[in-house]
Amino acid sequence: MAITSPAATARPTVERRAVLPAGFQAGGAAAGIKASGRPDVALIVATSGPAAAAAVFTPNAFAAAPVRLSRANLAATSDNSRGGFGFASAVVSTSGCANAATGAAGEADQAEVGRLVARQLGIDETRILHLSTGIIGSRLPLDRVGAGIAAVAGQLAAEDAGLAAAAEALRTTDSVVKVATTSIELPADDGQSITITVSGIAKGVGMIHPSMATMLSVVLTDASVAPEVLWDLLRPAAARTWDQLSVDGDTSTNDTVFVLASGVAGAAPVAAGSGGAALLGAAIEAVARDLARQQAADGEGATILITCVVTGAVDDADARAVARAVVSSSLVKSAAHGKDPNWGRIAGAAGNAVTASQAVLEAAGLSRDEASARASSPATIDPDRLRISIAGHPVFDGGKGGPLSFDRAAARASMEAAELVIELDLGLGDGTGEGFGCDLTEAYVIENSEYTT
Amino acid sequence: MAITSPAATARPTVERRAVLPAGFQAGGAAAGIKASGRPDVALIVATSGPAAAAAVFTPNAFAAAPVRLSRANLAATSDNSRGGFGFASAVVSTSGCANAATGAAGEADQAEVGRLVARQLGIDETRILHLSTGIIGSRLPLDRVGAGIAAVAGQLAAEDAGLAAAAEALRTTDSVVKVATTSIELPADDGQSITITVSGIAKGVGMIHPSMATMLSVVLTDASVAPEVLWDLLRPAAARTWDQLSVDGDTSTNDTVFVLASGVAGAAPVAAGSGGAALLGAAIEAVARDLARQQAADGEGATILITCVVTGAVDDADARAVARAVVSSSLVKSAAHGKDPNWGRIAGAAGNAVTASQAVLEAAGLSRDEASARASSPATIDPDRLRISIAGHPVFDGGKGGPLSFDRAAARASMEAAELVIELDLGLGDGTGEGFGCDLTEAYVIENSEYTT
Repeated sequence: MAITSPAATARPTVERRAVLPAGFQAGGAAAGIKASGRPDVALIVATSGPAAAAAVFTPNAFAAAPVRLSRANLAATSDNSRGGFGFASAVVSTSGCANAATGAAGEADQAEVGRLVARQLGIDETRILHLSTGIIGSRLPLDRVGAGIAAVAGQLAAEDAGLAAAAEALRTTDSVVKVATTSIELPADDGQSITITVSGIAKGVGMIHPSMATMLSVVLTDASVAPEVLWDLLRPAAARTWDQLSVDGDTSTNDTVFVLASGVAGAAPVAAGSGGAALLGAAIEAVARDLARQQAADGEGATILITCVVTGAVDDADARAVARAVVSSSLVKSAAHGKDPNWGRIAGAAGNAVTASQAVLEAAGLSRDEASARASSPATIDPDRLRISIAGHPVFDGGKGGPLSFDRAAARASMEAAELVIELDLGLGDGTGEGFGCDLTEAYVIENSEYTT
Repeated sequence: MAITSPAATARPTVERRAVLPAGFQAGGAAAGIKASGRPDVALIVATSGPAAAAAVFTPNAFAAAPVRLSRANLAATSDNSRGGFGFASAVVSTSGCANAATGAAGEADQAEVGRLVARQLGIDETRILHLSTGIIGSRLPLDRVGAGIAAVAGQLAAEDAGLAAAAEALRTTDSVVKVATTSIELPADDGQSITITVSGIAKGVGMIHPSMATMLSVVLTDASVAPEVLWDLLRPAAARTWDQLSVDGDTSTNDTVFVLASGVAGAAPVAAGSGGAALLGAAIEAVARDLARQQAADGEGATILITCVVTGAVDDADARAVARAVVSSSLVKSAAHGKDPNWGRIAGAAGNAVTASQAVLEAAGLSRDEASARASSPATIDPDRLRISIAGHPVFDGGKGGPLSFDRAAARASMEAAELVIELDLGLGDGTGEGFGCDLTEAYVIENSEYTT
């Protein structure tokens, strides 16, 4: 079986480097929020007036104070009452304290963080977006945060090193800094071709005691695009990437993705539905996908990245449901850790697949009616048509009676690679999707069962 | 906070003994399906004509051959085309081979098992219900199964020991036999009070290499009740118990619950909606709940039972969603293993709670319209009203600013017990529900990552 990864040919090339797009400054510093003394305050500043901004937030009912404040600020700068897009002049991030489950006091603390940043940068506090990650139920140490913000503001750099420093300060238990960049060519008003940079930094989904596995990502571009158009590009990109990422199935109180567009590269504004929008959307998705894969690979205790590629589904929603179910299965994750080409667990996990929520399906591009009809429904699978490959080895073909004989030693050897690709062809239609996860290891349990509260 | 377990006062007392209700024979034998040589074939036979039967099956798209055959047989003996109820003269169980993902050959094998039982017992093969659990993708060894059926048929006993033998033969990796029994008083036609026995046997949710965590349960009673009435008692009982059971979140290809009623105790037929139906339903639910708790406690690698009790939800569907989310969270399960009174993870898990599928909500008693409106929707939670207790220690009160100070050493000590009770009062309404799970341990990962295929 040769199953091609969806849109593999159309995907822009991504490099794992910190490349700061034009129109931004960035930096990071150690403010002492983290006990380790490592960098924990990051700032990203739009230097040519407010940038167009779009966001995707956690669906968790316990959304943390930074999430609620960011939503409110975006809503204050646009006509989108849901806080999905608007304008922003800066992003501030604190690592080490999630400021979640801290009630009204936590809300006031986060607002004070905004005032501190506004004062340092001379901007309106409603133009500031907030990220926090770390311990739940603890108050932000405002004095240290204030000193950290002042320190970062004093060393902001319109250079790649500034973005690298911000990425470093975003980390919690991440074993590596997560950065990704790509570029596309967009036309200027005079028809000249302008190179546009799309870069992202991210943390997660590693965990910091005793918080949950927070996922934070910030994508920057120097393209010119209206906030609502940017949002319409971000949401389907996130639905195909971050929404398909599972480390342990829990959604954090603080999960956030921001995309900011400075518009200073000189390209013409990207119009909704245009070829430029398709290019920019593909670039954002490519960066999102690469960051999501870095996040999955660095899952707590993980030793390998698991990518599940599903083709032949009735539609993309079904394909993504199956891919997500496979990479989320504790049994599949354990088998991957044990280098066990166990197709029975993969088939069983696929058989449990349920499509995403209405909100995610709408974000992915389905109409409200379509999303309502397809939301949270079992994926259509016919065992007699299913084909499964593990690390390139065909192991199951429903059309040929099911289990295939295969070289188990060779399959095990292939599973020693840093990435395990599990392919399912449902044999039913044209739907495709991917899921990203990691193996389940003893280390995950040990780290998460240590007494930490 | 004193949160009372839902319906605790109304719940019939359950004992963990094998008590065979009147009108049945049972037995088990070792047929050599299991490599260990332990008992692996079980038979339960209705001795006074076909018993009323009701069933709940796995929703997994890869339903195994025994599931499909049982559905078909029940459908053939009733007007319920979904195979939820009908009449049955026997239940046959094979442990060690799931007969799942075996295609048309597996279907033929399972039908042959039915013919073997029918021949031994002199009954119609459509009156036989099937259970199988074990390795996926392997064919049933029909010669051994046939010899095993003959052996069991030769030693069927209308005694408790026969039911105990059947329970023993149901086991796979279960560390203990799972049995439960209770009794109620129902009126006879002459107004006399008749003692009715309701007993159950079960296996799971331990795993057998390389299969998934199959849950099998059989409940027997000597009450007299029509199949459709029995189904209407079983479904809400299962929705409140087995559907709230989570060991690792995966649903097996073979999960099955059967309830058989012989009707020979002498009580008057239980009419739908009657007081007797309420009593019988409560007895079935009590046995189901106890078996589900035994199954959770014996989850693979588990060292403790986790019970989550939710009160104050908008409705029961929300309460069950939150309870299930808490006991399903890998982070909560790891914290429980580490004796960490980590309310942040509990709150976070609750914040991710999503109500059950439409099918489960309908089974639980909601109308089709209600179930459609409430299915797979986020549970309503207000962080400012939520209260959480861990092992009896109040740790969070949203109305009092959130985190409470508590004696962590004492809480840790309380968490050393064999059962951890996590209580959440959502402070919103009268909805209640429970969830049953177990801790996530290094042993789970080690067992499931060993190479087994």
